[in-house]
Amino acid sequence: MLRYLTSGESHGPSLTAILEGLPAGVRIDSAAIDHEMKRRQLGYGRGARMTSIETDRVVFLGGVRSGRTIGSPLTLEVKNKDASIDRLPKVTRPRPGHADLTGALKYGTHDIRDILERASARETAARVAVGAVAKLFLKEFGIEIFSHVVSMGGVEAHPEKLTWDQVRKRAEASVLRCADSAVEKKIIALVDKAKKAGDTVGGAVEVVALGVPVGLGSHVQYDRKLDARLAGALMSIQAIKAVEVGAGARVSGMLGSEMHDQIYHSPGKGFHRKTSRSGGFEGGMTTGEPVQIRIHMKPLSTLLRPLESVDIETKKPFRATVERSDVSAVPSAGVVAEAVAAFELAGAMIEKFGGDSVAETKRNWKGYLKQVEKF
Amino acid sequence: MLRYLTSGESHGPSLTAILEGLPAGVRIDSAAIDHEMKRRQLGYGRGARMTSIETDRVVFLGGVRSGRTIGSPLTLEVKNKDASIDRLPKVTRPRPGHADLTGALKYGTHDIRDILERASARETAARVAVGAVAKLFLKEFGIEIFSHVVSMGGVEAHPEKLTWDQVRKRAEASVLRCADSAVEKKIIALVDKAKKAGDTVGGAVEVVALGVPVGLGSHVQYDRKLDARLAGALMSIQAIKAVEVGAGARVSGMLGSEMHDQIYHSPGKGFHRKTSRSGGFEGGMTTGEPVQIRIHMKPLSTLLRPLESVDIETKKPFRATVERSDVSAVPSAGVVAEAVAAFELAGAMIEKFGGDSVAETKRNWKGYLKQVEKF
Amino acid sequence: MLRYLTSGESHGPSLTAILEGLPAGVRIDSAAIDHEMKRRQLGYGRGARMTSIETDRVVFLGGVRSGRTIGSPLTLEVKNKDASIDRLPKVTRPRPGHADLTGALKYGTHDIRDILERASARETAARVAVGAVAKLFLKEFGIEIFSHVVSMGGVEAHPEKLTWDQVRKRAEASVLRCADSAVEKKIIALVDKAKKAGDTVGGAVEVVALGVPVGLGSHVQYDRKLDARLAGALMSIQAIKAVEVGAGARVSGMLGSEMHDQIYHSPGKGFHRKTSRSGGFEGGMTTGEPVQIRIHMKPLSTLLRPLESVDIETKKPFRATVERSDVSAVPSAGVVAEAVAAFELAGAMIEKFGGDSVAETKRNWKGYLKQVEKF
Amino acid sequence: MLRYLTSGESHGPSLTAILEGLPAGVRIDSAAIDHEMKRRQLGYGRGARMTSIETDRVVFLGGVRSGRTIGSPLTLEVKNKDASIDRLPKVTRPRPGHADLTGALKYGTHDIRDILERASARETAARVAVGAVAKLFLKEFGIEIFSHVVSMGGVEAHPEKLTWDQVRKRAEASVLRCADSAVEKKIIALVDKAKKAGDTVGGAVEVVALGVPVGLGSHVQYDRKLDARLAGALMSIQAIKAVEVGAGARVSGMLGSEMHDQIYHSPGKGFHRKTSRSGGFEGGMTTGEPVQIRIHMKPLSTLLRPLESVDIETKKPFRATVERSDVSAVPSAGVVAEAVAAFELAGAMIEKFGGDSVAETKRNWKGYLKQVEKF
Repeated sequence: MLRYLTSGESHGPSLTAILEGLPAGVRIDSAAIDHEMKRRQLGYGRGARMTSIETDRVVFLGGVRSGRTIGSPLTLEVKNKDASIDRLPKVTRPRPGHADLTGALKYGTHDIRDILERASARETAARVAVGAVAKLFLKEFGIEIFSHVVSMGGVEAHPEKLTWDQVRKRAEASVLRCADSAVEKKIIALVDKAKKAGDTVGGAVEVVALGVPVGLGSHVQYDRKLDARLAGALMSIQAIKAVEVGAGARVSGMLGSEMHDQIYHSPGKGFHRKTSRSGGFEGGMTTGEPVQIRIHMKPLSTLLRPLESVDIETKKPFRATVERSDVSAVPSAGVVAEAVAAFELAGAMIEKFGGDSVAETKRNWKGYLKQVEKF
Repeated sequence: MLRYLTSGESHGPSLTAILEGLPAGVRIDSAAIDHEMKRRQLGYGRGARMTSIETDRVVFLGGVRSGRTIGSPLTLEVKNKDASIDRLPKVTRPRPGHADLTGALKYGTHDIRDILERASARETAARVAVGAVAKLFLKEFGIEIFSHVVSMGGVEAHPEKLTWDQVRKRAEASVLRCADSAVEKKIIALVDKAKKAGDTVGGAVEVVALGVPVGLGSHVQYDRKLDARLAGALMSIQAIKAVEVGAGARVSGMLGSEMHDQIYHSPGKGFHRKTSRSGGFEGGMTTGEPVQIRIHMKPLSTLLRPLESVDIETKKPFRATVERSDVSAVPSAGVVAEAVAAFELAGAMIEKFGGDSVAETKRNWKGYLKQVEKF
Repeated sequence: MLRYLTSGESHGPSLTAILEGLPAGVRIDSAAIDHEMKRRQLGYGRGARMTSIETDRVVFLGGVRSGRTIGSPLTLEVKNKDASIDRLPKVTRPRPGHADLTGALKYGTHDIRDILERASARETAARVAVGAVAKLFLKEFGIEIFSHVVSMGGVEAHPEKLTWDQVRKRAEASVLRCADSAVEKKIIALVDKAKKAGDTVGGAVEVVALGVPVGLGSHVQYDRKLDARLAGALMSIQAIKAVEVGAGARVSGMLGSEMHDQIYHSPGKGFHRKTSRSGGFEGGMTTGEPVQIRIHMKPLSTLLRPLESVDIETKKPFRATVERSDVSAVPSAGVVAEAVAAFELAGAMIEKFGGDSVAETKRNWKGYLKQVEKF
Repeated sequence: MLRYLTSGESHGPSLTAILEGLPAGVRIDSAAIDHEMKRRQLGYGRGARMTSIETDRVVFLGGVRSGRTIGSPLTLEVKNKDASIDRLPKVTRPRPGHADLTGALKYGTHDIRDILERASARETAARVAVGAVAKLFLKEFGIEIFSHVVSMGGVEAHPEKLTWDQVRKRAEASVLRCADSAVEKKIIALVDKAKKAGDTVGGAVEVVALGVPVGLGSHVQYDRKLDARLAGALMSIQAIKAVEVGAGARVSGMLGSEMHDQIYHSPGKGFHRKTSRSGGFEGGMTTGEPVQIRIHMKPLSTLLRPLESVDIETKKPFRATVERSDVSAVPSAGVVAEAVAAFELAGAMIEKFGGDSVAETKRNWKGYLKQVEKF
């Protein structure tokens, strides 16, 4: 069973994660991990602060020896540049849309800093680190995960005619992580406009996984359905308010005759589909088709335009103002979503194939692929 | 910790669930449980089969004594009328949109009946039984859960001007579980049309929970965020392809200034909001405002109009035909979603308040409500 | 992941268990399961009640089709002959050594029946049923589990010179489940004496598993050590007060030079040991040598000789008397312990080898055995 | 739910643990934590290496602000003085009694260092750190945990006539952590003798918890019995081979009339016992009496006297020799056992009483104590 816990506050000494259950022998490609950390920090719409600061780096304090995993749990540490948590002032003014008020009431604290330090999206650095390792594991099995922005501020991208390879490359080359360059320009204009207005912009991202074998997850119990696990995990990313698998919310407006991915078979391909409305899942299991999941991120809750709120000590209303703010973190959310999806898929691989070394897991996986082929 | 497992096939002897972790002293109101079972079986769009058959009944084989829970795990049994599983013929023709093909490949079986018997939505009878008990528990704390159909086949209801009480009552009185009577008529026409065409219709449901205290769930770890847990659990319901919390997918088209629920305070109400775009969650925790989550159900996969598929033994294509089919199960999905949400909320209550008897849990809850009031 | 929950009270309608995570294709040998249920009910020292009543039978309400598992969760039901729970009188007199007083205080009930009905060792019928299925799964991999009584009332058996095969056969042929026939006679005399005195007798049992591959469990995290999992599971059996792995408590009196199982290698056998003080575990992992664990059962808490106690309503002292009682359930505890150990070992097999069908799990296991052989 | 993971190798950069689920407001007394770390490193029988090196210190990288917990997960880091893991040579010679051979076979590695670095008892530093925090939490509820050595090399201590306070103080003052000063001398002689012989010595420790309320754990499901959870957790400590609750293994030689703790009641004390053979547990729940559990530790597996083994590359036999070794780590194991028990008890407290701040948990606990008092 693959599992992880993250810890750390945004102005604490570091973010850490312990990741447990990975087989021995996964090559830890530091450059690949650094690259993921960097991808998380980029994206049009971030303030100067975010893009100018030094890139996060992952240090392994456990579980890695001579560049490979040894079966032990991994400790991943991302040091914070600004570890001022004990010197930072008390906060009594909750920001709407954040965990501030709710957390203060729950934990019984009158210093909102106790809450916001952990609720901050800074935590996603630890999750991206975990996901980067999960990606390295998945790569051993030819599984690849990427994401692209499919809409922002109501402007929708149309990458339908592109191949997956084109989508991935164009998204990686885009400052917005958007594969549709015409739409990218419109969104940039929209972001610039929002910035001037002191406002923030929401958006949607599609996460795609290619090479996933048929039969991960299971229909037999509600908590073993892999689409459900992915949905839960993706919804746990800060600011995500909707998750759609395949055709997603559009299914409620569809007819059965339009919806279902019909089944074909040919000697070379085996069983396959020509459409992908299911998002790669039937009965909570992967179909072997591309996994496609969309997430919707709300506009950032910290904005220059003041929102009304109430001081938790004085109970007096005030208008929440900030000096600076990102306009959007949607491109970055895609990178986080990849990481989160990578962890869930890696876990499902280990559940199905077992194994304590990559060689063993791979042998089991190959045996199954042959079984499916001969089916 | 509240947990449950369900078991049983659609033509096996029975569906069963074991529900573990409920405090002692919850009154088991059989009429209320029977009522939930009945609600699940109703709804415009079901074939004659579904609505004419005898209502499911829950029998308690453990955990209940003299009409009250005693702290032991509960066994809930729903007997099947047709327990013919061992006599039913082998199935080799997978239906697109079902678990049929994927499950057969995963479990290495050439008899699809091994898969479809468990993957069937019949399993939701066990989940509704579990949820009915969870609702009885939540009722002790004044928490109420209901649902209403918000769209079908692309036709959207507009209950925005109704009070929650009106929404609930109108939905309960509607054959479609839709609170907007004008739209209800349109949808009925649409269902009738689809029926004639041998097609099926998707739809969306909103689940609402009132009376939920502030501070269930937690921001501190990804798997403790209650909106994420609810999203995962709701996505695990058969045929659900999207989950939206509050404003949901619309957030990706919104500006920050439109999105966030501003914070107010008054002596009588304490902290409160005037809008509910968050769906009752900030930072993965309940805000104390109504919980509002939407789910989108795909049109049923079993339809009269033939879909293309391939026999798993002969590898020959065929057109999947059935003699009869429901047109939609969207109203029923709302009842299942209530049950699923009730379980998750009950679990979150027990996590926060502990307690081995309802009296103890209630004492702890009251102490917390007073703490929040005095905050 | 293999998991189970049991439910049911000793005078409720039935004991049930849901067992989830078993691959498809395990043959459900009803005779073998019935045999395990019967073994649990036998043993010298039980009152007439226990041995004369009709044997328990397991009915499968889910997860089995045409005599094989299908990957779905299994519901196992054992009906109670006497389902009088709602008619049985209130109990206010707690018996020392039972859960009576502690449970009443915890759950806030003044009717001890709410507690004793579930705390009863009757629950082990459900665990033996689960274990019987786990044994059938293990048998596919040549793993065999048995037990024998190693002491009762301070009289110790000495089966050290017997082969495992002899131990198993002699224990099965013995009314005490004791492989040492000379000692068996002494214990019978001791039980008879205790019976006359209205007393009860404790004892110890050794559980043995043969054919367990090297490398189940893991050293990498405290909760993955398989000896620890077994210890926890075995200690959860009613009335067990000590668990010993291999040399067990004797190790605290040993020197290092006497303790450790030295390592040998030969072409035929590969790595092996000539001693078995470790009980088949090093670093929380199976060594491939026989697994040997001892458990110690306290004398039954229900005895004819009165114990002092206090009525929970009147707070007046009384002397706890019963009309009849078993003298010992030690032989039966061995059968329960086999079941509990079988479940844990089956879970560890599935964790290491994965697989959704027995054929797949077996293929993975064979690949690993070959890897170990070639090591 | 309280949970933790540890990570780190004995010559890696550090040992880390993430501890999740502690309420906000627990005061982190660094001196108390340092003291626990130091206690773990002491004890007669350790080599010069162990006692002369600098004391371990715990650094908090998350979850603590201004000396108090804030509800977030805690990261606890213990830096290693010697972080040479990547430079240390390959190991191909497995030591009997260690995880060496078993781990190498399981994980498919020919370098035993991949195994021994994590299997090392160095890992217990992380567990003691976690336990030290758990102790601080328990202290808020007046729960105190300590341990004392009850036997070594077959020599048994007899502290039966001492009060708990005397046992604790004398054990703390003893180089062997043994409360019986006469026996302490004998054991010192025995350790010295073993040292000269190049041998190692096993021993047993009793862990005691005072002030534990009645009703932690539960009888209702096998995995909720707190004595079973404690047994599993304690057995997971390196080199532990037996766990005894209360009278432990002695129960198998006892009669029922000698065994059970009779029940008394008086206005001042409420329900109570005059004996403690149950070890503070009935039905898997705490009785409110002192918790008493014994663990047996095998003599250390690294000893000067050579043991036979086989090189995993050459398959040639060799005699495992070391240059230096501790003679015993039994006193230290007691400190680890306290930590492990503290975590389990803290988890059981949180399960029963819930709460997100110490104030809330305490309020719930007080309400329950009053309920028990009035029962």
